[in-house]
Amino acid sequence: MIRVAVDALGGDRAPDEIVAGAAAAASSEIEPVLFGPADLDTLGLELVVASESIGMDEHPVEAVRSKPDSSLVRAIRAVADGEADAVLSAGSTGATLAAALFRLRRLPGVLRPAIAVVIPGRAGPTVLIDAGANADARPEHLLQFGHMGALFAEEILGASDPEVRLLSIGEEDEKGNQLTLDAHELLRASELRFGGNTESRRLLEGATDVVVTDGFTGNIALKALEGTIWSLLDGIQSELRSTLRGKLGGLLIRPAARRVRRRLDPESYGGAYLLGLRGLVVIAHGSSSRVAIENAIQLAARGVEHRVVERLEERLPDRVVASARSTTPTAEK
Amino acid sequence: MIRVAVDALGGDRAPDEIVAGAAAAASSEIEPVLFGPADLDTLGLELVVASESIGMDEHPVEAVRSKPDSSLVRAIRAVADGEADAVLSAGSTGATLAAALFRLRRLPGVLRPAIAVVIPGRAGPTVLIDAGANADARPEHLLQFGHMGALFAEEILGASDPEVRLLSIGEEDEKGNQLTLDAHELLRASELRFGGNTESRRLLEGATDVVVTDGFTGNIALKALEGTIWSLLDGIQSELRSTLRGKLGGLLIRPAARRVRRRLDPESYGGAYLLGLRGLVVIAHGSSSRVAIENAIQLAARGVEHRVVERLEERLPDRVVASARSTTPTAEK
Repeated sequence: MIRVAVDALGGDRAPDEIVAGAAAAASSEIEPVLFGPADLDTLGLELVVASESIGMDEHPVEAVRSKPDSSLVRAIRAVADGEADAVLSAGSTGATLAAALFRLRRLPGVLRPAIAVVIPGRAGPTVLIDAGANADARPEHLLQFGHMGALFAEEILGASDPEVRLLSIGEEDEKGNQLTLDAHELLRASELRFGGNTESRRLLEGATDVVVTDGFTGNIALKALEGTIWSLLDGIQSELRSTLRGKLGGLLIRPAARRVRRRLDPESYGGAYLLGLRGLVVIAHGSSSRVAIENAIQLAARGVEHRVVERLEERLPDRVVASARSTTPTAEK
Repeated sequence: MIRVAVDALGGDRAPDEIVAGAAAAASSEIEPVLFGPADLDTLGLELVVASESIGMDEHPVEAVRSKPDSSLVRAIRAVADGEADAVLSAGSTGATLAAALFRLRRLPGVLRPAIAVVIPGRAGPTVLIDAGANADARPEHLLQFGHMGALFAEEILGASDPEVRLLSIGEEDEKGNQLTLDAHELLRASELRFGGNTESRRLLEGATDVVVTDGFTGNIALKALEGTIWSLLDGIQSELRSTLRGKLGGLLIRPAARRVRRRLDPESYGGAYLLGLRGLVVIAHGSSSRVAIENAIQLAARGVEHRVVERLEERLPDRVVASARSTTPTAEK
């Protein structure tokens, strides 16, 4: 039985959608444990009482320090204390990161945890890392993200000898800003199978296994992708509604449209791993519905099953410590 | 008659698609002039012989210096010499920028030219600036981009008192990397109508008039948007082809899908302005088809009609010089 600690008070649609999603994810293999107020209607799930909540607007570090009994901090502590195998929150990413750094701490050798999102590409899944944990990053951080992403692709996505690419503004080696130019050199010199730069227009192709970027750029790219999917599907839908012919056509294409939506919808992949910590942390969109929460809990359980943290711990330290050492001069720039 | 100098050798599909697009754009108001080799089949258009071409892989500054008689440099010189009203190239953006800086020079007070792209949002057009001219930018550059974008939105898109927003990873003021945090303060303190941060997921909503960003981030966001549109439309199309029901539905929805595609397709908006120079420069996608080239030439002509460069020159210097002065301490950081 995999126990997933669920922050019932995190997210725009908490607690109702969170609880409903957790209830839907409960199975003979998965046991969601809710962290929330005593009067929460848990739909029969186990509850650990934690009545304080951390808002999206609060300063992450201050909020985490001043609210040790918040649903988020308590849920993360449950993983640190071995009472749960993984934790999920749809609340503030910054606060989740702060609480995880404070309560779980980093794996040995890891400079910065990073958010790894699986993008459902046409030819297969691609890991985008970092999708938003570090707004400012240095070249050696990007190198570590490459290592973490490659291990993730191997262990969880089953990629053998995964290819790592660097997100930039052109495929040519010399295209990019200073950060990507420097990171490009580090990645090129590393033991990773580095395929050079890739462009954001190719993210949905699934042409590579791992796409490395800083958290600011990764977040911008991911949200552009998500926003465009929604805008386009909604645009087609409202165009179809405007004519009888369109309405009839819309009925006929519904199954096909649903298959595409299911593949690309952020609600389907639901969550992202926060990698580099001594415990499995999954974050979900602030706007997550019950479906997204259910998927995110399943994603967390998959990470536990596949022993993501343990495998990173086993294999990562050598790689990242070696990388960090070799890049110290760059770090001091 | 508006004369548009067209670099017939720039772009992946040059010269055939370039010439075809130029011929299609020719009208009683627009006179495209081709710059290319003597044996070019010009489809009846005027030709200025320039046989050298600058490849996508060449170092921009070196290529521009060593090839003064290339089609790109000659086309830009035609604008500098008053022989054409605007110039269009689908070749290397870096080389176009380098040639424009060298041959046209910047408008007084402008620190850095920037690429302004009009994104066809649902509620109306949005100017994204910078979409790729400056891979590394400083906060005061972003402030200038805000001024240039606002003037562009007023003069070309007819926005009255345009709202300017800053592209970041959250709408809250404190979300962003160091560059956006610093630029946020400058924009907030400026005379612009600054609406705060916006996220890339909202780019297609058309919720604001101007979105300011550095060229690296803007390019990543724009290409993510374009790539997603293509992936999604292609994905729906191939799903529809897989069943008879889908095929029939596909026929029925074709007009609606075409309307959406027409609004969102990068081929429709075709080109982008390179703002801040003493002459009108339009750049088009490297992959531009004849349709994209035709649209880009029309975009160039519209810029001439609306006197974009002259109006920027009239109104910008006060604003940007004032901005540059007030931000000198930041610039020296």
